[in-house]
Amino acid sequence: MKNTTVTIEDVARQAGVSISTVSNVLNGREARMTPETLARVRQVIETLGFRPNQSARRLKTGHMPMIGLLVPSIANPFFGALARWVEDAALARGYGVLLCNTQRSATREREYAQAFMAQGIQGVILGSSLQAQEHLGPMIRNGLAAVCFDRTAQHAELPIDYVSLDNRSAGAMAAEHLMSLGHRAIAYVSAPLHSVNRIARLEGAREACQRAGVRFEVQTQEVAPGQSEMEMAEIGRTAALALHEKGTLATGIVAMNDMLAIGLLAGLRQSGRRVPEDVSVIGIDDMFLGQYLSPGLSTVRQPMHEMAVAAVERVLERMKDTDQAPHELIFVPELVVRESTAVVGVRHQPTRNQQA
Amino acid sequence: MKNTTVTIEDVARQAGVSISTVSNVLNGREARMTPETLARVRQVIETLGFRPNQSARRLKTGHMPMIGLLVPSIANPFFGALARWVEDAALARGYGVLLCNTQRSATREREYAQAFMAQGIQGVILGSSLQAQEHLGPMIRNGLAAVCFDRTAQHAELPIDYVSLDNRSAGAMAAEHLMSLGHRAIAYVSAPLHSVNRIARLEGAREACQRAGVRFEVQTQEVAPGQSEMEMAEIGRTAALALHEKGTLATGIVAMNDMLAIGLLAGLRQSGRRVPEDVSVIGIDDMFLGQYLSPGLSTVRQPMHEMAVAAVERVLERMKDTDQAPHELIFVPELVVRESTAVVGVRHQPTRNQQA
Repeated sequence: MKNTTVTIEDVARQAGVSISTVSNVLNGREARMTPETLARVRQVIETLGFRPNQSARRLKTGHMPMIGLLVPSIANPFFGALARWVEDAALARGYGVLLCNTQRSATREREYAQAFMAQGIQGVILGSSLQAQEHLGPMIRNGLAAVCFDRTAQHAELPIDYVSLDNRSAGAMAAEHLMSLGHRAIAYVSAPLHSVNRIARLEGAREACQRAGVRFEVQTQEVAPGQSEMEMAEIGRTAALALHEKGTLATGIVAMNDMLAIGLLAGLRQSGRRVPEDVSVIGIDDMFLGQYLSPGLSTVRQPMHEMAVAAVERVLERMKDTDQAPHELIFVPELVVRESTAVVGVRHQPTRNQQA
Repeated sequence: MKNTTVTIEDVARQAGVSISTVSNVLNGREARMTPETLARVRQVIETLGFRPNQSARRLKTGHMPMIGLLVPSIANPFFGALARWVEDAALARGYGVLLCNTQRSATREREYAQAFMAQGIQGVILGSSLQAQEHLGPMIRNGLAAVCFDRTAQHAELPIDYVSLDNRSAGAMAAEHLMSLGHRAIAYVSAPLHSVNRIARLEGAREACQRAGVRFEVQTQEVAPGQSEMEMAEIGRTAALALHEKGTLATGIVAMNDMLAIGLLAGLRQSGRRVPEDVSVIGIDDMFLGQYLSPGLSTVRQPMHEMAVAAVERVLERMKDTDQAPHELIFVPELVVRESTAVVGVRHQPTRNQQA
């Protein structure tokens, strides 16, 4: 009994095309293919007697098809919320979501992406991915459809889509809210600046303060040895203590994100400073937890639900045609004022032109 | 060119055994197999000329093998923390984790479990699963190794392992802490009682109060139409307002879990009651957020890290031998006292025998 199984890899090699091209031929997606390529692939399929793997077929038809979602830290409720919306949007379109935690490790991102492909998953959403993306290049060139969440395009050479908040505007909006309340000395607190969105938020706040001639200082909190970067709230608490220790003059603080702000509020309490009487605090993201805090957290909202829907729609579109040009979708932030920000008290006169 | 592929399903059907039994033969796991079954399966493999699928093989060897984790709501930070620890424990043992969100839907649990099996994933951890498990029976009988997290055994007929907090003791411990501070009227606040662990926590608190002759009332907060049950904090906020409206006499409140307690604190503030001066609040779980709240949340800790390691070890053990008898691992809760509980103020004399 002859049983030499011909694989899709064999066809691709023999025809000199990518696996995704063979897959496109098999699934009738020939729109962007030259007639020469199409003819060559079809001939190799015939010559080798290739038959698509039956169990892979069944996976697509009888069972729920899947997309992948990679997040840096699922213990961070921000990514929990992202995962929830991505999954809702995917299920509404007939797809399940397989979610993996990368802890900002390029090795883990690559291994998970490889495992996804090995399991027949053809699309992946990268939540707040690393600055460098070379480690994903081979999979993407091999037909994995990828959408980056919360970062802008950096590597135009890879066919990837981008769904992102306008992070620079978000940083500016947070600083401008504090300035509109009369704050003339602003501190920006950040975790290590190793992602595109973190740098953009900081630069937006810095530029807004420079434009207005307002004092601006940056507290970039390093991660302690043995401390996981995922303990975002703890980083915020430590940053508040560090600012206090160096005698900051800032009356308003912009936190890189709401999780950091939660820790900042705790650290400020710990060092005897009242929010908002002594110091105002504003976050970025509008996590659902912010409204339950005491004081309620002022923040700059990113429209997570809409962004998650856009990311899912993009990855499903790209799965149909992995060679299409990169798309970039940028969402507009929105100010949400709660109790953690107030007009500056002692040193300055309050101004009234609070943004709505 | 003859190319009739024989599948593992064909072998199982012909030999009259389950797919997992064939898989056990192929992988040399023959310990719990009768010599007759072993001989029959081997003979069918030979007769049909079956060769294990090469890509499935590569999945096991060249790529990262995977286990599945099903959680009811990944937007709930409690399950984010569980996912983090499960993934850490799995990676340390060479396994990746695919995580899916079921929103307590039996249909989604079944579809995800089917998709896992279709993709060659042989083990799954069910985070706070539904009371009924019949919907998973076919997959489990077909060789899927399953471990239930945070519930005790209910269906001895299925070979499933259980890793759980002693939820009854946790409920009792929370109530006893309040009683040790002099509280003689205690309210227990719960989301709908449709999971095993929720019922156990309530019963533990009720029994402790009955033993001590302390007034006990239950506020089971229904989920509003259109409100997702995952908005646990919002359920807590609504429950606080409802208790206030009906003029509760309780000076101490036990929250079913910490997420609910976060909302309770907000709802109590909203109705003008101070914590802990007017009312004490204690949660269950010890989520990392509790220490950052104002006031810091007293709670009953479940050892999530240790429990996650145990769940991963159990599922990997069961994958080696899916027919072994059910294991049940119960973890002991621990009281964590922060600022949200205090000796009862006006109506009663404080007692000093606070538990440590």
